[in-house]
Amino acid sequence: MGQPTDIEIARAARKRPIQEIGAKLQVPAEKLLPYGHDKAKVSADFIAAQKGKADGKLILVTAVNPTPAGEGKTTTTVGLGDGLNRIGKRAAICIREASLGPNFGMKGGAAGGGYAQIVPMEDMNLHFTGDFHAITAAHNLLAAMIDNHVYWGNELDIDVRRVTWRRVIDMNDRALRQVATGLGGVANGFARETGFDITVASEVMAILCLAADLKDLQCRLGDMIVAYRRDKSPVTCGDIGADGAMTVLLKDAMQPNLVQTLENNPAFVHGGPFANIAHGCNSVVATQTALTLADYVVTEAGFGADLGAEKFFDIKCRKAGLKPAVAVIVATCRALKMNGGVDKSELGTENVAALTAGCANLVRHIENVESFGVPVIVAINHFATDTEAEVQAVKDAAAAQGVEAVLCKHWAEGSAGIEELATRVAALADGGTADFKPLYPDEMPLFEKIEAIAKNIYRAGEVVADTGIRKQLKEWEAAGHGNLPICMAKTQYSFTTDPTIRGAPSGHALPVREVRLSAGAGFVVAICGEIMTMPGLPRVPAAQAITLNANGNIEGLF
Amino acid sequence: MGQPTDIEIARAARKRPIQEIGAKLQVPAEKLLPYGHDKAKVSADFIAAQKGKADGKLILVTAVNPTPAGEGKTTTTVGLGDGLNRIGKRAAICIREASLGPNFGMKGGAAGGGYAQIVPMEDMNLHFTGDFHAITAAHNLLAAMIDNHVYWGNELDIDVRRVTWRRVIDMNDRALRQVATGLGGVANGFARETGFDITVASEVMAILCLAADLKDLQCRLGDMIVAYRRDKSPVTCGDIGADGAMTVLLKDAMQPNLVQTLENNPAFVHGGPFANIAHGCNSVVATQTALTLADYVVTEAGFGADLGAEKFFDIKCRKAGLKPAVAVIVATCRALKMNGGVDKSELGTENVAALTAGCANLVRHIENVESFGVPVIVAINHFATDTEAEVQAVKDAAAAQGVEAVLCKHWAEGSAGIEELATRVAALADGGTADFKPLYPDEMPLFEKIEAIAKNIYRAGEVVADTGIRKQLKEWEAAGHGNLPICMAKTQYSFTTDPTIRGAPSGHALPVREVRLSAGAGFVVAICGEIMTMPGLPRVPAAQAITLNANGNIEGLF
Repeated sequence: MGQPTDIEIARAARKRPIQEIGAKLQVPAEKLLPYGHDKAKVSADFIAAQKGKADGKLILVTAVNPTPAGEGKTTTTVGLGDGLNRIGKRAAICIREASLGPNFGMKGGAAGGGYAQIVPMEDMNLHFTGDFHAITAAHNLLAAMIDNHVYWGNELDIDVRRVTWRRVIDMNDRALRQVATGLGGVANGFARETGFDITVASEVMAILCLAADLKDLQCRLGDMIVAYRRDKSPVTCGDIGADGAMTVLLKDAMQPNLVQTLENNPAFVHGGPFANIAHGCNSVVATQTALTLADYVVTEAGFGADLGAEKFFDIKCRKAGLKPAVAVIVATCRALKMNGGVDKSELGTENVAALTAGCANLVRHIENVESFGVPVIVAINHFATDTEAEVQAVKDAAAAQGVEAVLCKHWAEGSAGIEELATRVAALADGGTADFKPLYPDEMPLFEKIEAIAKNIYRAGEVVADTGIRKQLKEWEAAGHGNLPICMAKTQYSFTTDPTIRGAPSGHALPVREVRLSAGAGFVVAICGEIMTMPGLPRVPAAQAITLNANGNIEGLF
Repeated sequence: MGQPTDIEIARAARKRPIQEIGAKLQVPAEKLLPYGHDKAKVSADFIAAQKGKADGKLILVTAVNPTPAGEGKTTTTVGLGDGLNRIGKRAAICIREASLGPNFGMKGGAAGGGYAQIVPMEDMNLHFTGDFHAITAAHNLLAAMIDNHVYWGNELDIDVRRVTWRRVIDMNDRALRQVATGLGGVANGFARETGFDITVASEVMAILCLAADLKDLQCRLGDMIVAYRRDKSPVTCGDIGADGAMTVLLKDAMQPNLVQTLENNPAFVHGGPFANIAHGCNSVVATQTALTLADYVVTEAGFGADLGAEKFFDIKCRKAGLKPAVAVIVATCRALKMNGGVDKSELGTENVAALTAGCANLVRHIENVESFGVPVIVAINHFATDTEAEVQAVKDAAAAQGVEAVLCKHWAEGSAGIEELATRVAALADGGTADFKPLYPDEMPLFEKIEAIAKNIYRAGEVVADTGIRKQLKEWEAAGHGNLPICMAKTQYSFTTDPTIRGAPSGHALPVREVRLSAGAGFVVAICGEIMTMPGLPRVPAAQAITLNANGNIEGLF
């Protein structure tokens, strides 16, 4: 028989009215804007009134490099939140929202898994509270206003070959990757080539997730570069005059969404920027709100610690003034065995030697995260096939670094299976040993920042970039953007740019193919390898099997 | 000084919690899905449980041909709903939702005006409950799946030159009217020309507004024709396998939205199909739900009675089995003077002769609406410049047709200004004199249906259509679509296809330029003249002035 599926567990959840969940954080019912009975936004005026209140402890959940074996980072984030509540702590969870489009390609997924999930799962995989639709609308309003500006005389002297602002849609649609618009004659404007990205790749998404409030949001939107003139001077969203209307479109979306775990503990699910060309964390507003309302806030970052934790620290924490107290690195025996060279088909067999070899990946991440001044603990997310010897090998590898590794069974047992980790995390957080500092100072030149990440985190021997890229970075420094942090866009599967190289490689070269300025979000993107910003649908898209059954339940989405 | 603006009045509204509004219609709070504190969807299970309950009386509000003078059809719909409640009747209002995109071109507007408005006005001009975003997503999922089908081998043998399914966006963006997609090489699919319409022009919107329930919705979605093969045989949405997933995306959007008037009376605001290439009425689900919950339901149809009322009767009422009890034709002295030849700049001056001449337009609409077996009453929507002699002239013209015309001052006075109309409408409805029948039978050939509308409603002498169009209609009849009603797409400003010809012309020719089959919505569109399905932004779009002010209020949207 075994455990029910995620969707079966989610559907059997005994959800409490969202006002009860808000009450656990002392949010009065009238300050919650309900969306149905199990979702709500926390109102902006309530959030503004919390400013300056004592902050809770911020706990980051990150992971080893992802493998096809699955690590369970979100599952552990949810489980740890439930575990902290179980041991009597007032804890809240902060994670990202899911993108709609990809669910119609491959099957969508739960937020978490097993008995550590956030609900309502179905709404969260569909329109949820409409945040992504609002971002799509705001992004495309700007696009329409740019072409409209050119159509009516182009007073700003935009070079139509250099319009960098594309359009977005929350759908996997490869046919839109590259398009020609303005066809059909004079009435439809000037023909030009452009394309669509998926909504989560929008700079508007990154901004929504980094902005302190609506005023900051509008400022950042106005700073976005949307095109260049023939003399290569930039034209911004503010020049087009779209920042005010975009802010109006985003004013509801800026309010964080409150939902609940299977154990009826509060979870904020808000924002969802790409983890490659953007920073891959839930919104600053959600995290800061949670910190004023809860004593412990458990959040996660995208991908493995090399990309996710580094960006969380160097972009989100730096910019929002957040001070993480503890970092949890999630590992599984399966993933570490894969890092040690075992094929996916062999993961069911005990292999302590391979696992021990694969622990090099975990150890590297421990070293890296500790270098930010944040104490680390390892969560071993239990799978039924794990052997005692394997679990012990992970504990030994961590212990050799002076770090504890705790076996967690939240997937099968909910909070009861993660009490030990919760207790240890709370103690670490309360111990006050954290002394967070970002990897590099704001004033370091841009190329040196890329080198700092490459050499200290990826352990690369050198950064390879042609003179055009170095020149571009210098130009941005001259234009006043030199103080921005770097957002690395690199494969999540390896410390190198080759996704097949697992473990803990070092001395490799990091080629930077392209750099992009996200002047509104406030970072410079360094692209290392191919980055896809508009997925396609597979031969048999999940959508073909998605339907409502006779009971009105959704089939095929999960 | 004068009356405050619509937005000032709307912001000063003393809204009641939406649960109180639901309670007026005996909808329990747990059957309302709240969106904030002042909007809710009525849950599908509650609606299903009302089936078979005795129906209230259905009152249609329509109007003379629109002029730049303004008629106030929605204002009168809202005012009449409030008026009926004021005289002790349990009445609900049903109107359409507003489209987001156009608000960023020209200023958006209220639902109603003066002291006869529906609130929350701002939300209703922005994302509201997300229905249109859901329609956009469902529509574009199908588009992505069509191109994806071709990409992976094109088993259905679609002729890529004959893909009729375009994409949609709820934005005024002329650059998207005609585009080439699939550029950039093999990985992006096959290049072809296509384009974007505004979301309200989507057949999905028309279907959402005509479907009885989710099952019927999925059926109709499956029937939509999306492309043709080389042999011209149709490929449907069902062939692509998108109907199930689209239904899942639309399941929340199918539930009607409940909001309130300034006087805290219930109003359903749901769906918003174009009134030219679609039928221009709010959803059948909203109207039928309101009819099970209220004793009187006041609804409106798009444009003037020649287009709006005819489609309401021949498409919506025919298909949904609705039996309207009364029709209110809204007229203003100003609009009738324009129909009598007065220029807009001269409308402030009394001109009984011109007004009397212009009454020919009103009289024509009275005759037309009565020909459907529905008793008529005229609402004279009062303007401050109206003179007593002018008002009397309208009354006399109506009386000559055996119809009452009642002066209404709801814009300035709210329900107190429309008590007389409410009393007379209730009496007419209760009198049971209506004997509704559509204009033509289902089994009439398609071209004869077009002729029936042209000759009986527009009073045209003939319908002009080339042999290709007649042949196309015959082919659709042979394919089993001959029983569908006709959806006329014609200028709303005239009984003819020339928008400058006001009054009551007759004997003209009605040229049909094109016919389109909306096999899912269930009608054949006859296009007479140019119809724009993707608007552009003006030289100075309203968006440039839209912003949040220091108090967090929206400026520039209204």
